[in-house]
Order: sequence, then C-alpha cells, then structure tokens
Amino acid sequence: MSKRDRQLHLNLFVAPMGHHEAAWRHPDTNVNQLLDFAYYQRIAVKAEAAKLDSLFFADRLSTSPAMVRSGAAGGLEPLTLLTALSVVTRRIGLIATVSTSFNEPFNLARRFASLDHLSGGRAGWNIITSGTDEEAQNFNLDRIPEHAERYERAREFLDVATKLWDSWEEDALICDQQAGIYADSAKVHEVNHKSRFYSVKGPLNVSRSPQGRPVLVQAGSSRDGRRFAAEFAEAIFTAQQTYEDARLFYRDLKRQAEQFGRSPEHVHILPGICPIIGRTEEEALEKEAKLIELSNPAHSLLMLSKRVGFDLSGYPLDGPFPDLPVEEVRGHVSRTDLIVRLARSENLTLREVLHRLAGGRGHRTIAGTPAQIADLIEHWFTQEAADGFNIMPQVMNGGVR
Amino acid sequence: MSKRDRQLHLNLFVAPMGHHEAAWRHPDTNVNQLLDFAYYQRIAVKAEAAKLDSLFFADRLSTSPAMVRSGAAGGLEPLTLLTALSVVTRRIGLIATVSTSFNEPFNLARRFASLDHLSGGRAGWNIITSGTDEEAQNFNLDRIPEHAERYERAREFLDVATKLWDSWEEDALICDQQAGIYADSAKVHEVNHKSRFYSVKGPLNVSRSPQGRPVLVQAGSSRDGRRFAAEFAEAIFTAQQTYEDARLFYRDLKRQAEQFGRSPEHVHILPGICPIIGRTEEEALEKEAKLIELSNPAHSLLMLSKRVGFDLSGYPLDGPFPDLPVEEVRGHVSRTDLIVRLARSENLTLREVLHRLAGGRGHRTIAGTPAQIADLIEHWFTQEAADGFNIMPQVMNGGVR
Repeated sequence: MSKRDRQLHLNLFVAPMGHHEAAWRHPDTNVNQLLDFAYYQRIAVKAEAAKLDSLFFADRLSTSPAMVRSGAAGGLEPLTLLTALSVVTRRIGLIATVSTSFNEPFNLARRFASLDHLSGGRAGWNIITSGTDEEAQNFNLDRIPEHAERYERAREFLDVATKLWDSWEEDALICDQQAGIYADSAKVHEVNHKSRFYSVKGPLNVSRSPQGRPVLVQAGSSRDGRRFAAEFAEAIFTAQQTYEDARLFYRDLKRQAEQFGRSPEHVHILPGICPIIGRTEEEALEKEAKLIELSNPAHSLLMLSKRVGFDLSGYPLDGPFPDLPVEEVRGHVSRTDLIVRLARSENLTLREVLHRLAGGRGHRTIAGTPAQIADLIEHWFTQEAADGFNIMPQVMNGGVR
Repeated sequence: MSKRDRQLHLNLFVAPMGHHEAAWRHPDTNVNQLLDFAYYQRIAVKAEAAKLDSLFFADRLSTSPAMVRSGAAGGLEPLTLLTALSVVTRRIGLIATVSTSFNEPFNLARRFASLDHLSGGRAGWNIITSGTDEEAQNFNLDRIPEHAERYERAREFLDVATKLWDSWEEDALICDQQAGIYADSAKVHEVNHKSRFYSVKGPLNVSRSPQGRPVLVQAGSSRDGRRFAAEFAEAIFTAQQTYEDARLFYRDLKRQAEQFGRSPEHVHILPGICPIIGRTEEEALEKEAKLIELSNPAHSLLMLSKRVGFDLSGYPLDGPFPDLPVEEVRGHVSRTDLIVRLARSENLTLREVLHRLAGGRGHRTIAGTPAQIADLIEHWFTQEAADGFNIMPQVMNGGVR
C-alpha cells in the first residue's frame, strides 16, 4: 500500500454518559439512560450514519460503593451490549473489551465467534489484562499478579483462542442434507493445547465465523503491552499527550511490528482524542471550565489513586504533584508514567493534574473550534503520529455527531 | 393461589433445527440457517405472538469432529443469541443455559443482569452443572468432577451470584445530577464471600436489574438435582416418559419445596414434550417414521454413548439393550437411569432405544392429532403431573406454530 492510500480510521469510544468525569452531571445528559438500550441504539445508529469505522466500549471488573456514589457506574457489560447493538446496525465494527485475566479462552472464543456470526463479521476484541487488586478480589485472588505474568497469560490466552477459532477450517461445512454430512470431520480439528496456564482440547463448538476471528485490538502502552500489540494487534488504542510522544510511539510500534514480520500498515495506531467543540475557542474553553466545575475533586482523587495504584488522599490539592514510586506500580504502568511525566514537565499541582485527567484520564483533550480540532487530526495523521483516532466525546449527548 | 387459578405454562425449547436428531436433514429444514439471526428472529416473534411464556436454549461446552459430521452442530452461544433476540421481542421470557462448572460467578451475574436490563426484565437462567469429561477437557481438567462436588459448586456459585445481584439495593440509585450523587453508597454493598470454591468481594458492577435477578430454572432430575431445584428453582424442566413417573416426580418436587419453606405453587414443573402432529394419527406416525429413516444409527449410538458415559459402539443394534453400570455413571445420572428403565420395562433392542431417543433424548414424544396431544397436556396438567410443558418441536421449520 502506498502512503497515498492511507485511510483515516475513526473509532467511537463510547463511555456511557461521556468521557468527562462530570459528564453524567451535565445538563445535556439524562443519567437515567445509563441502562437504556434505546439510548445506545441512537448513538450506534448515528455513528454508523457518520461512517465511523467502529464502536468501542472499555471495561473493568470491579466497582465500589465509593465509586458509584460520585460517578455514574454500574452499567452494562460491553460484549452483551454490543451483541444487542449488532441487531440495529449493519456495517459498523463492534469492539468489546474483555479481560484475559479472569475468563476462560473457550468461553471467550465462543462468544466472539457467536457475535461475529450474528453481526455478519463485525466483531472486534480489545484484549486487556486486568490491572488492579480490586478486580482480582472478585475472582478468588487477593492481589493482582505481576505485570509480566499477566502478559504471559494474555499471550497464551490469545494463542488458545486463535487455535479454537481456527479449529474449523474455512471449507469445513458441507451441509449435505441428502448424504447426511453436516461438516467434513477431517476439517474440524482438536487443538490439544497444553501449556503453563491452559489445557484445552477443542474443537470450538461454534463453526468458523465470517471473519474467522474478531479484529484484534490492544490498548496497553507499557513495554510488555507494546510488544504484545506489535505482534498481534490490528488496531492499537493509546493515550498520547503531545505530537512528539505520539510520533515516538508510532515509530516504535511500526518498527516492532516489522521485527515480528508484519507489514507496518496492518497495524493501525489510534491515539485517543477528547474534543470539546465550540463555535469559537472561547466557547470551547468555557464548556471545558463548566465541566471542571461539575467535577468532584474527592472523587477525581479516588479515581486517580486507583489508576496509579497509590493512595493520594492525604496530599494537599494545591501542593505540588507528589512523587510516585513509578517503579513499584503494579497496575496501569504506562498510564502512571504518562501522568507523572505530564505533572513534572509542566510543574502541575495535584489539582491541576486532576483537571487535566478529568476529560480523558490521560488521553489528549482539545478544546477548540472544529477547524482547530481538524488541524490537529490532520497534523498527527499526515505526519505519521497516528493512523486515525479513538474519539472520546466529553458528553455523549450532543458530543456525538 | 387456589387450584382454580393454576395457569398452564408453555416454554418453547429451541433446538436450532429441531429436536429430532435428523431434523437438520428434513426437507422442511434449511440447514444454512443454523447461523442465521433472521431465522431465530422469526421463531422468537412467532412464539411471542402465540403467547408462549418463554424461549429456552440448552447448552453444552464441547463438540468433536465425529459429532459435527452427522449432526448440525457448531451453532451460537445461547446467552449471546438470546441477547440479540431481546432486541426484536417485547414480552417473551429469555432463558439461557449457562454452566456453573466452568464460569466465574462475577462474570455470569454481570451478563444476566445486563440482559435483564436490556430486555426490561425478561432474563432467565437454566442452571446446570457440566457432566462430561469432554467438557472438562476444554477447561484445564482431564476428568469431570464427581456429581456431588459439581452440585456443591453449583450451590455456592448460585449463592455468590445471588449476593452479587443483591449487592445493589432496590432504591440504591439516586441519580441526582445537581447534588452529584449517583447512588447511595450505603445501599451498595460489598459481598465479601469466601468459601470452598469462590472468594468474591463485590459489589457487582451492574446496578440492580428490573427483576433483581434472572428467573431461576433447573433441569437436573438426579437426587442432587431435585434437591437443588426444590430449594431454588422457579421452573423445573424434566424428562418423563409416563404419566405415572411424571406424577411421582411432581409430588416429590412439591413436597421437597415445602420442606425448604417454599410455596409449592412457586415451583413450576414443566416436563418436556416432543409432539409430532398430523391431521390423523397415521399421518403423524408416518412423519415420525420418515424422521427415523433420516437418522444415522452410528451417530445416534455415539450420542447415546456420550449421554450415558459408556461406549456402546461394540454392541449389536438388534440385540437386547446392554446392561449399563448405572451406579458408576459420572455424567447424566438421572437420564441414564430413565433410559435403562425404559429399555427394561419394554424389553427393547438397542436399535429400538435409539429410535425412542431420537426425537427427544428421553423426553416424552407423542405422534398424533392436535386433539390427542391436547388431551395428554390436559391430563397431565389437571391431574397434577405438570404445571405446563417444555415444548420440543421435532423440526423447527413447520414445527413452531
């Protein structure tokens, strides 16, 4: 593919009420829609009409009484919701986040194959490892395993799932009612996988789906995460604050993909972008200020503490951002690193960091006119810091167009 | 509730192409529809229009090259398919089979709560334990655990799932955008479950669903299965060959439910019925003979061997039904017992047993006129051998009306 043929890929990252922490309190939001299928249907139909490539839902396997007090939480499981949305859409991709840490490969391979059949080949899987003790505690563990072990498990999980998806060859189905042969048994294979984490006989009990397997997406930007993404992912979601960082990440991933023998253009790198759009820049900045005003600093601090795996509640909001022991982080490694670098490079107070993260948890926010936002998109895309973007509306109602 | 108020409950047990082993070869069947959502949508819409109570899909966590050769297998995962069907129906119940043996309570509780939200309170869970080594081998084990252990795990699994569903009180949601309070944190609880099989902190990360939890259904008729059903199930699916057996089962379950302090009328007992309908009895019998003709004895024998957990392939088809070591059965205990008693009581050959099982795997088949079938339904219902039926059409196309 020549560079001229590059196509901008746009994915809609759906956060139920919006990506801003305070989106659920915004006057445009009807928070009762958090559990309302018709609401998601409207978003999906609008995104499809706007010719976006795909819809994407993140996921997390825990919540807490404190978290649900000040944030609209307790929403629907992504793969279930996307399955329902497959019925009311026809072309848009459906990317569900499912953790490799607390699922069984056979069950997951089956659900994605089923969705791929139901949707006519539109299933995508955002492959994650779960990163917090709170999630581990919902699955029989006290603490989350070490980062490297989580990725080792993810690698084997994907290996097993891929073997299961491939256990039915493309032309295995005969469907000969007269002769009484449904499938060619020589083309449906046991997988007989046995390794460190999993032992799975196979074959899968769902026949080969339209795409063969879901589109593989990855969103971890740690060293292990990048390597995993470069080896397997077709699309990579990443949080990048600056063009320079995005450019470095882009180059690194494309280079690593080549080292794995892959064509770099088969790996689509999509940084997150959190747009706040105004007719003028001032209007956009006012909108942003209004959202910050609706935020609850205590809740923001709780969320940040969970994100970096370090209790920040004792620190003064208007003091300097505290030194975090980055080396000891056991949760979201690369995001913690991004936050610490952001705070240091601009000498931010703890409160200022909270404001910067409120819109996109570390993804690039931009408040401006449509032209300003289009300029950033064009710059990053043409200068090869991005193959497209993961669009993160701050408030879903009104923010999707 | 007085006896006069008893309502007949009818559930449609959907087997993709039909319950008869040879349904997929029948001229009325288009086997290419096995993976076609529009086909299931038509069935669901028709069942809803006929005012049936619910749709139900069975499940099994394995297949094999040999099984898919002579049987239309490799279809969609039930909970995924029912989620999609929730979008195109409005009133009918949606009952998915999900095994307690190879899932995590947190994941399952979440998926059912999500479906219950999406469907406006129509989710049902047929609680099973997986019973075969082949299934165990897809989940890191060599052999399936003993029957008693499987039920002990199921009991704890349901306990954890129930705690998770109850972790959000009914009035926990505040949704006060002005005050910034989404949920009352005093009404969202950790569950802190720790016992033999599971350790789960909670709360669930899906808020309380319309029904609170799915309708609980159970289908095992072994001693352990009956006890479990009497204690927890709101609907019980069972295979009963004769009125006398059905009556005994009915009395036993109602009595056990009372011993658990439950009102017997809250436990609905629905035997399976496999109707083959003709304008005359002769026509119905011809239809049945036609289906038997399309059956493949080698495949039937394989399925029966799996069902009883004993390799029957060496036995002559026209010899007497062999003695099975019922006491040693580790899989489907009560079904094996039913099959052995059926064979002995009527002195059947192995081939005759295969024919009897081809239509419903041990469920009651009846070939006759609509009036004859209605008589059976009325007799079992009014004489308290059933609170309704689990209708198992032999061929789905044409068989659903």
